[in-house]
Amino acid sequence: MAYMQLLIRFIAGFVFFFHVEVSAQGNSDSLVIRKIFEEALTKSRCYDDLGTLCKSIPPRLSGSVGAAMAVEFTRSIFEDEKFDRVFLQQMMVPNWKRGDVCSANAQIGKVKKDLRVCALGGSVGGNVTGEVIAVNSLEKLDSLGRKAIENKIVFFNRPMEPRHIHTFEAYGGCVDQRWAGPSKAAKYGAVATLVRSMNLREDEFPHTGSMSYDSDYPKIPALALSTDDATWLTNKLAEGGSIEVSLRANCVTMPDTISHNVVGELIGTQFPNEFVICGGHLDAWDNGEGAHDDGAGCMQSIEALRILKNIGYKPRHTLRAVMFMNEENGARGAKKYAEWADSLNEKHLFAIESDRGGFSPRGFAIDSEDSIMIRKISRFRTLLEPYGLHDFKRGGGGVDIGPLKKQGTLCIGLVPDSQRYFDHHHAANDTFEHVNKRELELGAAAMAALIYLLDQEL
Amino acid sequence: MAYMQLLIRFIAGFVFFFHVEVSAQGNSDSLVIRKIFEEALTKSRCYDDLGTLCKSIPPRLSGSVGAAMAVEFTRSIFEDEKFDRVFLQQMMVPNWKRGDVCSANAQIGKVKKDLRVCALGGSVGGNVTGEVIAVNSLEKLDSLGRKAIENKIVFFNRPMEPRHIHTFEAYGGCVDQRWAGPSKAAKYGAVATLVRSMNLREDEFPHTGSMSYDSDYPKIPALALSTDDATWLTNKLAEGGSIEVSLRANCVTMPDTISHNVVGELIGTQFPNEFVICGGHLDAWDNGEGAHDDGAGCMQSIEALRILKNIGYKPRHTLRAVMFMNEENGARGAKKYAEWADSLNEKHLFAIESDRGGFSPRGFAIDSEDSIMIRKISRFRTLLEPYGLHDFKRGGGGVDIGPLKKQGTLCIGLVPDSQRYFDHHHAANDTFEHVNKRELELGAAAMAALIYLLDQEL
Repeated sequence: MAYMQLLIRFIAGFVFFFHVEVSAQGNSDSLVIRKIFEEALTKSRCYDDLGTLCKSIPPRLSGSVGAAMAVEFTRSIFEDEKFDRVFLQQMMVPNWKRGDVCSANAQIGKVKKDLRVCALGGSVGGNVTGEVIAVNSLEKLDSLGRKAIENKIVFFNRPMEPRHIHTFEAYGGCVDQRWAGPSKAAKYGAVATLVRSMNLREDEFPHTGSMSYDSDYPKIPALALSTDDATWLTNKLAEGGSIEVSLRANCVTMPDTISHNVVGELIGTQFPNEFVICGGHLDAWDNGEGAHDDGAGCMQSIEALRILKNIGYKPRHTLRAVMFMNEENGARGAKKYAEWADSLNEKHLFAIESDRGGFSPRGFAIDSEDSIMIRKISRFRTLLEPYGLHDFKRGGGGVDIGPLKKQGTLCIGLVPDSQRYFDHHHAANDTFEHVNKRELELGAAAMAALIYLLDQEL
Repeated sequence: MAYMQLLIRFIAGFVFFFHVEVSAQGNSDSLVIRKIFEEALTKSRCYDDLGTLCKSIPPRLSGSVGAAMAVEFTRSIFEDEKFDRVFLQQMMVPNWKRGDVCSANAQIGKVKKDLRVCALGGSVGGNVTGEVIAVNSLEKLDSLGRKAIENKIVFFNRPMEPRHIHTFEAYGGCVDQRWAGPSKAAKYGAVATLVRSMNLREDEFPHTGSMSYDSDYPKIPALALSTDDATWLTNKLAEGGSIEVSLRANCVTMPDTISHNVVGELIGTQFPNEFVICGGHLDAWDNGEGAHDDGAGCMQSIEALRILKNIGYKPRHTLRAVMFMNEENGARGAKKYAEWADSLNEKHLFAIESDRGGFSPRGFAIDSEDSIMIRKISRFRTLLEPYGLHDFKRGGGGVDIGPLKKQGTLCIGLVPDSQRYFDHHHAANDTFEHVNKRELELGAAAMAALIYLLDQEL
């Protein structure tokens, strides 16, 4: 796009169709929200901090040295920003180690091809060879039965469905294969499983993620296969004949170990014993940098409160940013936080989570059946639309704030654009380079704006 | 984000707040729109074609071999897709050549530093040395006067303003420096100009773009400087003392040459002599691949009509996809198309342009003062919101369709998310790798959906 004269005309004409009626309060709210976005876009530190988290700290899966370093790093940011109170919450977390070996190759006649694989989180290690059998559903195993499956490697091959507009729906339609596939295959005597990576793109990155063994069946190795190699294997199987795959992995589950949530607090001026929290999870899968999942959400949560503090806002309720530990393979941090809040009789009014990537924010998913509350939040729409926040939907708030629901907390998830999320999710290319500074900052500002509005409203 | 059980709950609950009332027509429209998006997300060819345009064809600035090859390539797509009619429109275009030399270095005392620069489109070549003087506005030159400026190199250093939510507003606030700066500096005796690249990010890519000489003053070389080197230079100047820059470029303007618009047509079933067009521009700055600007818009325009054809839609009016030539430095293709339409008395009802990058589509900018028309289009909002299209604003349609306005054509611009656009705009990193397949496809589907609705409505 070029040609200045016409461009300037375009910009001059760029006014809203839909006139926004604002009351006096709405007017002052809109000024505060304007301030929030300006602070985010001109003075934020979340992007640089995310760079440090991704580049200067080793992978931070629960139980790792990197996770412990991330705890200290985020504590240091809170202290540096002079939050009123900074503290850790200790809990035991799972301690699975990926190991340093994970490989697979396919043999067709005399031809051998290396496959791009990674172990699923929680998988046992092993050294296994078997003929591959591909299936598109867990149910297919029941109809095939033991005779067809015994001693084979089951390849779960149902791809993400591209026709969904929201990519999380496509993910939800596949993830059963990863989570429950290994034990279902073991039930019929399979020796290992491969799963097509949960990625809408055809590329070379295997995507890990959590899986669970059913204690009734043997634990067999479970690996993810890159989408391009999954397609290659599909095509080769379609040609007929037998394909043998050999795979090796030395991952292992160690005893649970100690880790921590990190909490930074700004004390409320009117209701210091009532709480509003925002958060993300500090742990991340260890094959990438966990930049979008969920370094972004952590840095945005800290930033949201930093913004409110730095524009001089005095919150009515106590605000907390919570770095939850262990979302990826246990959610022990989420449970710990909710138990701890209950044990202290801390009333949590509202919680917002960012765990869908650091992309351009588009709105909020509101986990509430309360139509009065939904109407209240919908009223904010006219204030937030100028910032590209149009999508106010009923939906899940997030895994880490979910346990607060039983005390009646209103749980809300930040909803960014979802198109690129699964290109990076749980893969080696979930790196800092793929986060855009402005998109990250706008997400932090969106959280801060909603916290401001609800802190005023509730 | 992990933990399947909660995820599935989130997805199950993902329903709209705002109940959409649809009439019987609305209902059938919503089914067609669903089909359009499914076709785009599962069977489109625009992404692969964009890859070919970017990777197999050399840079395609007006007058280049690459531009001629791009004309033939897009013609071949139309023919391949069996459009009813495919034709070229011939015109003369400017023929500026970047040359193979463009460099600059700064000398501070005995220290010399290479600067990352590129020539602005239309600049003369030269071999110039001068002391640098930085200014933040064109007006500053008037107050400084000839004595301060003569024999110097003027460095236009006003950065894009990050606080704008829509990045095009930040661009609009800076681009006068690039367009009009060189002649304004020459008026006071400057020997060359540097301009801070129009990029919101601090990085190493100089961004080119069009500029214009005022015939009253000497033509002096005009280069863009990467934002990181612009900041370096700013800091060094702030330390005081004199900084001398030497620059060289061998760009040259050749005589105008022949080029073409490419048009593909699907003939209307009810009103074959009334036209609805969509388009992008086929030419691109030659320092990158022109992937977002505007290979994306060209491929989306072809795709929009391909989708309608392939779902079996019979348009009421004749639909055209137009590949405009020479948007970047002359808009001769835009003028040619409008003149040609006028000369044949072709009535153009509606035109939609995609020239703001191949990012997630968010809505449309509608260039109309007609409140009835605006109300009509606003009615489509409920049909389009499920696809993330919420932003219906009054605004410019685009440079290439602009000349049709005087025959009363309704001009509309596709508005994608703008956050990443200027990271790539007119720079070496405007490459195919930075285009996301789904984002591109969703933009094509958004155009097809609006064409469908307006073809029915008008």
